[in-house]
This record gives sequence, structure tokens and C-alpha cells, in this order.
Amino acid sequence: MIHANAAADRAAIRAGLHAGPTAGLAPGHVQGNLVILPQDWANEFLRFCQANPKPCPLLAVSEVGDPMLPTLGADIDIRTDVPRYRVYRDGELAAEPTEIAALWRDDFVTFVIGCSFSFEEALLAAGVPVRHIQMHRNVPMYRTSLPCVPAGRFRGDLVVSMRPLAPADAIRAVQITSRFPSVHGAPVHLGAPERIGIADIDRPDYGDAVEIGDGELPVFWACGVTPQVAIRNARPPIAITHSPGTMLITDLLNTRLAAL
Amino acid sequence: MIHANAAADRAAIRAGLHAGPTAGLAPGHVQGNLVILPQDWANEFLRFCQANPKPCPLLAVSEVGDPMLPTLGADIDIRTDVPRYRVYRDGELAAEPTEIAALWRDDFVTFVIGCSFSFEEALLAAGVPVRHIQMHRNVPMYRTSLPCVPAGRFRGDLVVSMRPLAPADAIRAVQITSRFPSVHGAPVHLGAPERIGIADIDRPDYGDAVEIGDGELPVFWACGVTPQVAIRNARPPIAITHSPGTMLITDLLNTRLAAL
Repeated sequence: MIHANAAADRAAIRAGLHAGPTAGLAPGHVQGNLVILPQDWANEFLRFCQANPKPCPLLAVSEVGDPMLPTLGADIDIRTDVPRYRVYRDGELAAEPTEIAALWRDDFVTFVIGCSFSFEEALLAAGVPVRHIQMHRNVPMYRTSLPCVPAGRFRGDLVVSMRPLAPADAIRAVQITSRFPSVHGAPVHLGAPERIGIADIDRPDYGDAVEIGDGELPVFWACGVTPQVAIRNARPPIAITHSPGTMLITDLLNTRLAAL
Repeated sequence: MIHANAAADRAAIRAGLHAGPTAGLAPGHVQGNLVILPQDWANEFLRFCQANPKPCPLLAVSEVGDPMLPTLGADIDIRTDVPRYRVYRDGELAAEPTEIAALWRDDFVTFVIGCSFSFEEALLAAGVPVRHIQMHRNVPMYRTSLPCVPAGRFRGDLVVSMRPLAPADAIRAVQITSRFPSVHGAPVHLGAPERIGIADIDRPDYGDAVEIGDGELPVFWACGVTPQVAIRNARPPIAITHSPGTMLITDLLNTRLAAL
């Protein structure tokens, strides 16, 4: 399924023609992490995002009860336009449906959070290799010992993604990703994994392990999976997210996110 | 000798009242590395600087035979306004005088090259600690195995300075120093010293060793001592530089060098 524009990809997803990962779809377009919460939990979650902008950079917050996201694209209906969802009840994964129309409530608020796909495109464009893309794997992600700033009932440790890079590429990657604060921005750590509570770099908590070459440094970025950990800890009666890797495709261009 | 302005410090140096390091003098003002060459060598050296902008970022090049540097400050006379000089004859250090008026020639061209003092001020202002300043030492510098781009008779390996930093500070330091391309810019390497040909991090080739704390990474920047190595290799009949640590104080403000 290769289309030149984001709307065509969303239409195919809405029609049930694509229920898998969105990596490589709609090149150049921003993809986002999804969190949907009832209004009485949404205000606290908004504060959690504000207090933790590196893992939770907000691209959009919907009106209460409105499934449309007009600032992210034409005719985006969040009930149908993500390939696969995760429904959490009391913090536990309860279902992974391909649409959530029957679950929609008048008090739901949608949050769309920036995703590292955007800065990976900028890295590749600058000639910086991205190992998990080279290996056709999902990015390795790890729970850390770095606590997020708590907000109300939402709390938890930071989740990071990791990309191994030669030192000169790591320096270039800091420069490039610093330009994209709305999609996690600069790395939070590089070098020794144990310094941030990662016991075994070959055993990620999410995604796939990748090879770290001789002389390469592991470089760690804040990850959009962090809010899912906070939701599990907060245990709201219902919360809906995207399924990892199956993101919301927006009409925004990655290049428009560059701060400088 | 603490003065509020650069001109007063230069006047004291010109009067022979200060012949030592300039670190800490004229806070906020750009200091520069010095290279003086006869015109028939200067054109090749200019090409060397153009080809190697990270170690040799040019702040100014004088008119042939003119000892004044009007773009760097009022009444700067390069024959008297540097605390201590090094005179190289056929590539060998021959003298370290405090003024060079008697040596001046009508065919001399002066090059002033950016210095890391400028970005260190920006690091400190951002709360990033600079170890050799904390330890009241000269920055450690190392010859590497990274070749410069040769130009005519000028060639040699890159010299780097090193500052140990915690990983998060190293990331911040990449961001900060990237804003200062005219004073060496972003680091060229971080982590394993042996990757760039440094055999023993505790034995710098120039300057003083500093402690690297547990969990810190050595971070390496291109260094303005690099042209002195190229001059030793080129062996011009005469070349004059500053003595390490005793720089030219200019009227330019460090903050004006920030690219972004």
C-alpha cells in the first residue's frame, strides 16, 4: 500500500484495507501516537504531557466528545483512521480492535503525541543510518529508572527508544533531532545504558533488539510509549491508544515541524 | 588584572604589564588564536583554513603588511597586543617574545582563528560544568589520527581539546557549541579516545590532564593548535603564533558569534 498522500492512506485504513504498521506510509507526513481518555482523566493527562514534553510532545488535543482532529488533517476521524487500537480497562489491555466507533463516548478527549518517525526521516535525509530501519525491525524501547514528573494520578518512569550510532553520527543526530522538539527532540542519554537503569541492552522491553556495532554508542530518545506506562499506573476505567507501530497518519509535513 | 573592557586589557598587555594566560580576561569578549606568515605562505595557509574550518575557523585575515586588525577591534596592533608570542623558524620554535615589532615585515599576513574560550563561556552560562576551569588548569589537548585536508605545503592531523561531561551535559554541549561554528562548533567525537588515535587520555600532548568522573564521557572538539602542527610540518622560514593560552583579546562579543 503505497500512496503519494496521507488522505489516501487514511482512507485505506478507514476502509479496513490496512491494519498493520504505518512505517513507510505517506512519506514526509507526520505520524502520531494516540491517547483517548474520558474528560475527568483528560485534564490530569494534559498536565502530565505539559510536565513531560520530551516523551509527550502534544501535536493536538481534541474538543471534548469530538472525534475529528481538524488541525492535523482534513476529515480525520479518530474512531476509524488508526490501523489498530489498544483498549485499556482499569489499566489492563482488554482488546486490540481496528476501529472504536462502538466505544466512542461524548466525554472522550483525544491526544495526539509526536512520534520519532518524523525525526528518523530527517536523520536518513542527512545520511545518518538508522539501524532498525536497515534491519527491517521495530525500534528497541526500554523502561528506564528516570522518573517522569507526576501529574495527578499519572506517573511512571520514562520509556526511551535506542538507535546505535558512530560517535560523529551521534553528534550529528543531536543537532538534527534538536530541531524537532515536537517529536521528542534531542536525545536524553548516550553511552552507558546502566546509567539510566537499563540492565540488558540486548533485551528491550518493547520492540526488537538491534545490533550495536564496534565503536558505536547507544543513543537514547524519550519515547511516546511513556504515556502508556503512565496510563497503566493510573488505571482509568477506560483508555484507548494506538497499537504500537500503527500510528495516526496526519496531513502535516515533517519538515514543517523543524524549529530552526 | 581585571578590567571591564577589552581595550583596557589590550592596553595593559601592550604596556608589558601582562605576559601570561588570558583566560578570564575581558569576560564576554572573543579571544583568538594567532598565526602570522609571509605572503608567499599565507595564500596556502588560507586555503588550509578554508578546507579545515572546524580546527581553523577564521575570524579575520589582515591586509598584507598591515599589523592592524580593524574588524576585530579599535587600534589592535598585532605586533604588541598579544601577551606572548612564539616565533617558529623552519618549523622549529625559536623564541617566545612578548612583542614582535622588530620582527615585523611588509609581507606578513595575520590570521586570527576562533578559540574555545568563546563556547566555554556559553557552556558555563548554561550550567554545563567545564572541568579544567573547575580545576584551574589548561584544557587537555591531543594529537589525533584524523587527517586534516592538506593544502599546498600545509598538512597534519587534527588536534582536539577534551572536556569530560555527563551524558546529558554532553548532549546539551553539542546543542550549545553547534551555535558557534566560528569558534570550532560542535564536537568532532565523543566516547572512546582510541577511535581517534588517542592512546592515553591521561597524557595529553598539550595542556593539562583532567579527571574524568565515573559515568562521564570524554567529548572532543577541534582545536586551534592544529595550525601550529601544520606549520611545523610545512616548515616556513618564519611563522609567528601566540603562545598557548595567551590569546588576542578582541572587541567582539562572544554572544555575537552565535549562529542561531
